[in-house]
Amino acid sequence: MAPATVDIEQIRAAALRIAGQVERTPLQRSETLSRRLGCELFIKFENQQFTASFKERGALNRLLVREAEGGVIAMSAGNHAQALAYHGSRMGVPTTIVMPRSTPNAKVEATRVFGAEVILHGSTFDETRQFTETTSAERGLELIHPFDDPWIIAGQGTVGLEMCEQFADLDVVVVPTGGGGLLGGVACAVKSLYPRIQVVGVQMERYAGAYRQFNDHHGNVSADTDAAAQARTGQSTVAEGIAVKSPGDLNQALLHQYVDKMAVVGESAVEQAIFDLLEIEKTVAEGAGAAPLAHIGAQRDHYRGQKVGMVLSGGNIDMMILSSVLQRGLVRSHRLVRLQVEISDTPGGLARLTSLLGELDSNIMDISHQRAFGGSSVRATLVELVLQLRGEEQQDTIAQALKEQGYDMTFVD
Amino acid sequence: MAPATVDIEQIRAAALRIAGQVERTPLQRSETLSRRLGCELFIKFENQQFTASFKERGALNRLLVREAEGGVIAMSAGNHAQALAYHGSRMGVPTTIVMPRSTPNAKVEATRVFGAEVILHGSTFDETRQFTETTSAERGLELIHPFDDPWIIAGQGTVGLEMCEQFADLDVVVVPTGGGGLLGGVACAVKSLYPRIQVVGVQMERYAGAYRQFNDHHGNVSADTDAAAQARTGQSTVAEGIAVKSPGDLNQALLHQYVDKMAVVGESAVEQAIFDLLEIEKTVAEGAGAAPLAHIGAQRDHYRGQKVGMVLSGGNIDMMILSSVLQRGLVRSHRLVRLQVEISDTPGGLARLTSLLGELDSNIMDISHQRAFGGSSVRATLVELVLQLRGEEQQDTIAQALKEQGYDMTFVD
Repeated sequence: MAPATVDIEQIRAAALRIAGQVERTPLQRSETLSRRLGCELFIKFENQQFTASFKERGALNRLLVREAEGGVIAMSAGNHAQALAYHGSRMGVPTTIVMPRSTPNAKVEATRVFGAEVILHGSTFDETRQFTETTSAERGLELIHPFDDPWIIAGQGTVGLEMCEQFADLDVVVVPTGGGGLLGGVACAVKSLYPRIQVVGVQMERYAGAYRQFNDHHGNVSADTDAAAQARTGQSTVAEGIAVKSPGDLNQALLHQYVDKMAVVGESAVEQAIFDLLEIEKTVAEGAGAAPLAHIGAQRDHYRGQKVGMVLSGGNIDMMILSSVLQRGLVRSHRLVRLQVEISDTPGGLARLTSLLGELDSNIMDISHQRAFGGSSVRATLVELVLQLRGEEQQDTIAQALKEQGYDMTFVD
Repeated sequence: MAPATVDIEQIRAAALRIAGQVERTPLQRSETLSRRLGCELFIKFENQQFTASFKERGALNRLLVREAEGGVIAMSAGNHAQALAYHGSRMGVPTTIVMPRSTPNAKVEATRVFGAEVILHGSTFDETRQFTETTSAERGLELIHPFDDPWIIAGQGTVGLEMCEQFADLDVVVVPTGGGGLLGGVACAVKSLYPRIQVVGVQMERYAGAYRQFNDHHGNVSADTDAAAQARTGQSTVAEGIAVKSPGDLNQALLHQYVDKMAVVGESAVEQAIFDLLEIEKTVAEGAGAAPLAHIGAQRDHYRGQKVGMVLSGGNIDMMILSSVLQRGLVRSHRLVRLQVEISDTPGGLARLTSLLGELDSNIMDISHQRAFGGSSVRATLVELVLQLRGEEQQDTIAQALKEQGYDMTFVD
């Protein structure tokens, strides 16, 4: 029988149960990010788990207390699926994962490779869920919910337990939140051990269900309205791992009891945080894993001088998306800029421009001519170039030099 | 007085000297890469050093035995510069770094941020070196060579010492090699402790000086000729960290004595290895750091079943280059493809094509029309699209579906 709630003893029991079968990931101080943010930042690297997310903790804890003999089933296309598939296969427990029919093949393969049976079914969330429940009943497979389950929550709570063991002197712990399993477990662990440590949950603006419920419950004025939230429904996010409409019932109660504050962050702040973790920490974070850093960066005055622990919850990000995040990061930091220049439409016109840009130490990545549409006269043509630069200072130098040479130019955003 | 050569006692002394001031980086088994390569792969994560490369070990060891009181000077635009600047500043030793005038600003800043004085001088390697030597003499600054120095080599050798302590059961250790400081030190440590462990050095095809010298010395037939090498001089490489023309004298002797084999790898193999380390290990490797994996992948039959340790020497790669490596990796794995299709130049022609591609679950990233040049008739036009796919299988499906619908199409490399 599943317990009605979660407490520190269950989290301690989970830690003992899963010890040696999941990584005790490092909690490391980041010198450079600390200096940049003005706080002392400690990162819990849950992307170093074998399937690259914290989800293994809950999944394994749940598998170890399973009751049915026939195997387990879950509905997930993400980290919960991979975690369950890996530990199920390792333990010889038949594992069935149900995903919506539209799931990209890459995600199917990422789960299948660990030995799970993957069934694609349903074109809506409800259809897929219904099918999962029916299959569970028909085949006698134990259904394992990704977050609304006390054993899962207790397992995820071991992240908080470890952080307290690794560095008890933290002032605040910042945790990404979708369904609330990680936050509920970590908050319960941290607050039970050290009530003085603040616990903050971070959500995406586009999926801020737990944030709204939390603030409603505490009678806080929330900048976010239901109408605004409704308007965002179905929007895509770089943080798929926490794109959950509302937290589980059990987690809601834990959040109300143990969490001090909920916050939201936007897409571009999270993209920037992924970029910074890659460039500075040399580590790959998925959107959810970078969300705490995005929040700390946005609230740096609030956190100044504090010892801040953040959970980098996972590193499963599509390489295509990561590549876009990198390029957009280069654009944001003026290392990749788009320039429109009018040149005379005569032989040598382009050569003069490109020589000048070369002397200004900028690397031309792409170039195109706009003949029909651009240019102020039929003897002029508009050239659009993508340049690789060192940053904003060089961009200013180039603008000035081109203008001095009489070019009509603009940088395009 | 600097010793004439390096032995295991000097490496042991270096380990004691630098203990607690550089990271004892983890040596971790990679499950997924092991399965994929058919060997047991253990990665030494030197990119987890504070300045993200092993160079700190040698630089710190050298700083701790310095003789001059006035400070130190070095010529380097890369990891040696950052390592020296960081530890020099930490210890209060004035540090001067000389870089060629053409050095990108990003590299200057990466060193300046650690508190070093950076001087840009010289338009050729020899000019910069000359200036460094003159300045060293004039200002009484102790010159610290990046690799041709026994203390530096002994410091880098601590990587090998740690690997042996962390997992003595290795069959082979694979090390990236440019000037030979890391390889010389690691080979000396490993062979002195466990002569049965094979030591392999990996170079870039474009900078294979140590490889050729080693094979000449041992009378091996080398596929590479001096003429071929000459032809490549000055070519760019993704592995800047090991783009050194020839190893130091001291290192040459160590390589001849302790190294079992030298190998070379090509640019695209290293790019693929960077991609794999990012996607699978969630870690950022610079080209040099990924070179051992490129070699092991190319020689997987040779390493089958063996316990292979590799030094991931550093993680300092320009984000622009990393972004290109990612995109080229997606192209190689057929997740980004370029398609040329002829469509009728009438309203609705493009709509029919794009609907079909949508039904085939492919995401259009870019599209352009070739009116003047493409197409078999004036009523037809050639469209070029960049598509995001799941891989080769989907690409085949799309080719078949388009042909069945009567489209004239080709995938362009």
